[in-house]
Amino acid sequence: MVTFCLLWGVNVERLFRPESIAVIGASDTEGKIGYEAMANAVQFDGRIYPVNPSGSGTVFGEEFVESVTAVDDVVDLALVCVPAAVVPTVLEECGEANVGGAVIYAGGFAEAGGEGEELQAEVAAIASRYDIALLGPNTSGFIAPGGDLFASFAGGVERVPPGDVAIVAQSGGVAHTLAFQALREGRGISAMVGLGNRANVGFEEAISYFDADEETGAIVLHVEGTDRGRELMEACRAATTPVAAYKVGRSDVGEFAESHTGALTGDHELYSAGFSQYGVPTVDSTSALLDAGTALAKSPPSAGGNVGVVTAQAGPGIIISDRIQRRGGTLPPLGEATRERIGEFLPGITYAENPVDTGRPMAEFGDVVASVAEDDAVDIVLVFELFEEALGFPVETLDGLAERVDKPVLFATEGPAETVANELQTLRDADVPVFTSPERAADAAALLARDADDSSADEGREVNADV
Amino acid sequence: MVTFCLLWGVNVERLFRPESIAVIGASDTEGKIGYEAMANAVQFDGRIYPVNPSGSGTVFGEEFVESVTAVDDVVDLALVCVPAAVVPTVLEECGEANVGGAVIYAGGFAEAGGEGEELQAEVAAIASRYDIALLGPNTSGFIAPGGDLFASFAGGVERVPPGDVAIVAQSGGVAHTLAFQALREGRGISAMVGLGNRANVGFEEAISYFDADEETGAIVLHVEGTDRGRELMEACRAATTPVAAYKVGRSDVGEFAESHTGALTGDHELYSAGFSQYGVPTVDSTSALLDAGTALAKSPPSAGGNVGVVTAQAGPGIIISDRIQRRGGTLPPLGEATRERIGEFLPGITYAENPVDTGRPMAEFGDVVASVAEDDAVDIVLVFELFEEALGFPVETLDGLAERVDKPVLFATEGPAETVANELQTLRDADVPVFTSPERAADAAALLARDADDSSADEGREVNADV
Repeated sequence: MVTFCLLWGVNVERLFRPESIAVIGASDTEGKIGYEAMANAVQFDGRIYPVNPSGSGTVFGEEFVESVTAVDDVVDLALVCVPAAVVPTVLEECGEANVGGAVIYAGGFAEAGGEGEELQAEVAAIASRYDIALLGPNTSGFIAPGGDLFASFAGGVERVPPGDVAIVAQSGGVAHTLAFQALREGRGISAMVGLGNRANVGFEEAISYFDADEETGAIVLHVEGTDRGRELMEACRAATTPVAAYKVGRSDVGEFAESHTGALTGDHELYSAGFSQYGVPTVDSTSALLDAGTALAKSPPSAGGNVGVVTAQAGPGIIISDRIQRRGGTLPPLGEATRERIGEFLPGITYAENPVDTGRPMAEFGDVVASVAEDDAVDIVLVFELFEEALGFPVETLDGLAERVDKPVLFATEGPAETVANELQTLRDADVPVFTSPERAADAAALLARDADDSSADEGREVNADV
Repeated sequence: MVTFCLLWGVNVERLFRPESIAVIGASDTEGKIGYEAMANAVQFDGRIYPVNPSGSGTVFGEEFVESVTAVDDVVDLALVCVPAAVVPTVLEECGEANVGGAVIYAGGFAEAGGEGEELQAEVAAIASRYDIALLGPNTSGFIAPGGDLFASFAGGVERVPPGDVAIVAQSGGVAHTLAFQALREGRGISAMVGLGNRANVGFEEAISYFDADEETGAIVLHVEGTDRGRELMEACRAATTPVAAYKVGRSDVGEFAESHTGALTGDHELYSAGFSQYGVPTVDSTSALLDAGTALAKSPPSAGGNVGVVTAQAGPGIIISDRIQRRGGTLPPLGEATRERIGEFLPGITYAENPVDTGRPMAEFGDVVASVAEDDAVDIVLVFELFEEALGFPVETLDGLAERVDKPVLFATEGPAETVANELQTLRDADVPVFTSPERAADAAALLARDADDSSADEGREVNADV
């Protein structure tokens, strides 16, 4: 793994998996970045050192240290909470102290143009000289909830639960939007990384790191633009972990985007073609990106694009069937044997083609789902059921079904918020990918369908994208 | 209002605003529709009569009555929880008892074809003879949370809070999906109606009723297909309340759709053109439909399609700006005076064109928002801000701003779930339309922009859609 990381030039192990952290510019004044970063950092189980030459006493129970060079310990990760102009000096000290990784929160670098660009070049050179993996500048940081590691200055990130999707976003703001969205929807993540200006650590390093990370089952990317497009694509292809991407900036937002992370948003068509050629499914929203991560992380690969839909209500079933077909999936006829079995479970069933519509949730719903999942004509299963308290969800059927039939099985529902949230947690605990709108579930199924098509189409195709 | 309703042939006043309710087929066996409907109905403040010839004693504290004709009171609304075959007899009795409205939950009518179609014709004839406004058959009913009226058999509907958006859905399942989604997202509704087979009460009657309803600020439609397309369009145009529509069934789901509510999904292009010509903005998902309702109900009409975007984080700002432009909105340059004022509030601001990017939430954020809102170049304002606990939201600025500048002002955020939910409630209480993903907020702003364009484009245009 380490060898592989070195291929990309920057070793991010000590950045993303530190045993000790220094918060440089730590502060006891609430609202300051040095305070907020410290508040999050102390969730970490390892050693924490607040560094500030003008600090005295303790902050969050940890004693202030004058300089990172004065820390009587190996510091793996430095969270640099100082203004842009001071960053080179601080980073030099990090180098002298043999720090392995640093997060630079400050803006005012390449994204500001002119002197900012020079400052960024200087910082990158220092990082390179001392072999420091540098995240940023101009980022709000990263988190890895499974390791209680919250290297972000945003309040509340410590509530994001651990899970198996790694979020790698070009923008720190989008990274946090995604992480908080995951939290709101009861989903966990293995990591959230805001790359910022990518002076040193870029998409490639993050992708190869999380590809090797045991907690990560899928990697989702937010991409504004990069001048290392080919390296990004190659990193996606080299990954054995599934990757999905959200490329933004289709219309003219070039100038604003450039002012953001110092990179042009580039040509959307080129990126789409590139991702498609390299087998990376793409989406068009933050929520679809999280949905893609959930579906990919929790599903066996799909052998094809044929989706079997089971619904307990016709209306949402129409929405789902329509949408899957519009977005690249197919609804094949079910096998004769499947239709017969369903007819045995449910004589006079409302609709027993594909979609299967049971008309209402019922005790036999799970058996119907299993029958469709076992049908050879079906590569992907999507189940929709409005929640009914008296029946609950077919948890026993769904638990382990995807593994048994070796196909993705997605579940979507809606119902009285709190009750459904509790019931959905049971399904999530059983590793069932769950969704809370018919369209989002349909889009996830269609993404798996397109992804399957992509894999087969890729075989024997000459890959020569220049993005 | 009553006169207007009569124009459509069916008076729905006693259906949607009853003073007394009979639950026909009421049951004390949990899980049965007659039990679930009763459980919801008793939330109602008016008089409730459980009707069942084989019932004895009480159910939910109300004494069983043998027949609706034996009720010693005027019954406005009957919730008919009996199987299809018994419906004609029950409806005859309702007619004799001078019932004003009835909800028929049972399936097995036109959607089942053959004898079902005949049965539906019979039921429609009875309703017509006795002047009963009939919702369904084949529906899960309706709710009006402001009147504690829950004429649905779905558990949990009583938790949906009152609000100002009326949901009128062709499918009961989609109606409930939308209502529960509103609940999950902390939004209230004035009503949710599942039309089902529309034997008698259709889109037209529902639209004109909710247009006149004081609690309703916007009407959102879910449409599968209707052979009364022109009446639907005319009802939308006649409404002074804003209407938005979600037409499903773009790909080939005809056969399944027909089996659902007995209507073909029809030609999607024709509907789109029709809605556009009649000034009804359209969306492509359940969540976008609710977002449209929220934006339309809580906003003054937009004078044009120019959107001013203020963001506290660049990445989400890029997503929003890109998306608005792709979906029919424009981001105009801000006026010189606005840029100067923003420069005074925030010297060295990250980006002071449109979008305005403050780089982080800050105390001056509200002043920046107000400045953009006051700019004559701006017709619609969209604000995005990741939540920071230390600062909260600029509630003082946003409260009443839309009214003061007479423009839609939308607010979008994301942050640690529970904290944000509480803070958002404050904004909702101040009637600010709030959204929780950058894309959904951008889509809502673009919808208002397109809606404004539509109104001006409509002027002098010959309206001659034949849908």
